[in-house]
Amino acid sequence: MKVAVIGGTGGQGLGIATRFVVAGEEVIIGSRTLEKAQAGVDKVKELQGDVKNVKAATNPDAAKEADVLIMTVPLAAQKDTLLSIKEGAAGKPLMDATGPLESCIGGSATRCLNLTEGSAAQRAQAILPDAKVICAFNNISQTWWMQLEEPIDCDCLICGDDKDAKAIVTPLIEKVPGIKVVDCGMLERASIIEKITPLLIGLNIRNKCQFGGIRITGLDKGRVCK
Amino acid sequence: MKVAVIGGTGGQGLGIATRFVVAGEEVIIGSRTLEKAQAGVDKVKELQGDVKNVKAATNPDAAKEADVLIMTVPLAAQKDTLLSIKEGAAGKPLMDATGPLESCIGGSATRCLNLTEGSAAQRAQAILPDAKVICAFNNISQTWWMQLEEPIDCDCLICGDDKDAKAIVTPLIEKVPGIKVVDCGMLERASIIEKITPLLIGLNIRNKCQFGGIRITGLDKGRVCK
Repeated sequence: MKVAVIGGTGGQGLGIATRFVVAGEEVIIGSRTLEKAQAGVDKVKELQGDVKNVKAATNPDAAKEADVLIMTVPLAAQKDTLLSIKEGAAGKPLMDATGPLESCIGGSATRCLNLTEGSAAQRAQAILPDAKVICAFNNISQTWWMQLEEPIDCDCLICGDDKDAKAIVTPLIEKVPGIKVVDCGMLERASIIEKITPLLIGLNIRNKCQFGGIRITGLDKGRVCK
Repeated sequence: MKVAVIGGTGGQGLGIATRFVVAGEEVIIGSRTLEKAQAGVDKVKELQGDVKNVKAATNPDAAKEADVLIMTVPLAAQKDTLLSIKEGAAGKPLMDATGPLESCIGGSATRCLNLTEGSAAQRAQAILPDAKVICAFNNISQTWWMQLEEPIDCDCLICGDDKDAKAIVTPLIEKVPGIKVVDCGMLERASIIEKITPLLIGLNIRNKCQFGGIRITGLDKGRVCK
């Protein structure tokens, strides 16, 4: 599958891109300029050798070519970046990993901003109504993505309004060793999922750690009536 | 330790009370009337036989006698119940399990209300400034509490402003088999912790299940710099 990582030159984007390269997907690293995207590709190749399944493109070109898109940009760049890929994103699953953290406005990454739409993923859907937006990847730390020698000990909580899009991305995400996808329902669930990120960042700070994550338990235990 | 379960006659309160009875603590089930509290005690004895370490009291008397308090009341009863135990709660750890769910106002238990104070636990602290309020138990389903033959596969996320109070309740909570306490920091973290509950309720509904819970992972993995 052709996977575009839009804004894929930061730590989170490069980590996600590298994991999908390792998984054997065709990865396109997108950035505002081709030069920056190519620098991202070079970094992946520093880690993985001269792999053939990663290439660079501008964000609009990456979006047009790919089957599924992953957004890894800071909140302040989310709107402009989304508008720049409007054409390519139409009709495609678009996984949004944008964290609406207070650090976006010079505050603490342990706190969330309250966005008008309810969450960054809902904001993405409002900006690109033709894309099939899925909230994903929010709760997996950047450090986990780059810890390539280990499976990731964290669930990937997703939500979105398009069931088919979720059915496409679920097996893709689960190609990354260790990750289990937990479908939390409609896109409005992003207002909760995104808030878990600052909780985990706070736990990382308290525990001098970079790997704080979550697992959902008990969903296979059925019901018991007492 | 003497543990008062204030408003301990509903499903969650009785489940918590029963688990602490099994753990060997001195449990006082509190209610608005002594009769209702006694009915709660009778139910615990139905499950556990004629145990000696559980008794009934009105909420104010239970609060006065106990070393630590657990609040298990609906949001609509939180304020009046807290005011009724003001005297007994002063200076004591008070674990608040109140869920600010939309179901309190005839809506869905999969959605949260936005309270002025930020969370139900912060509201409890505002109502009783002399109590040492700790947000606790929110993410553990009622069904888990009553599944007495099994350890509970869920972490207990807590937060609060008083470190000493958290140090008192942590080993107490961990007497319940399976539960690990995760200290998430200051009381304002309750605004996130309490929101995980409606996420889990939604997952339970989606998965036809009653045991949805969470585990925090990775906090012992330290840091890795890439």
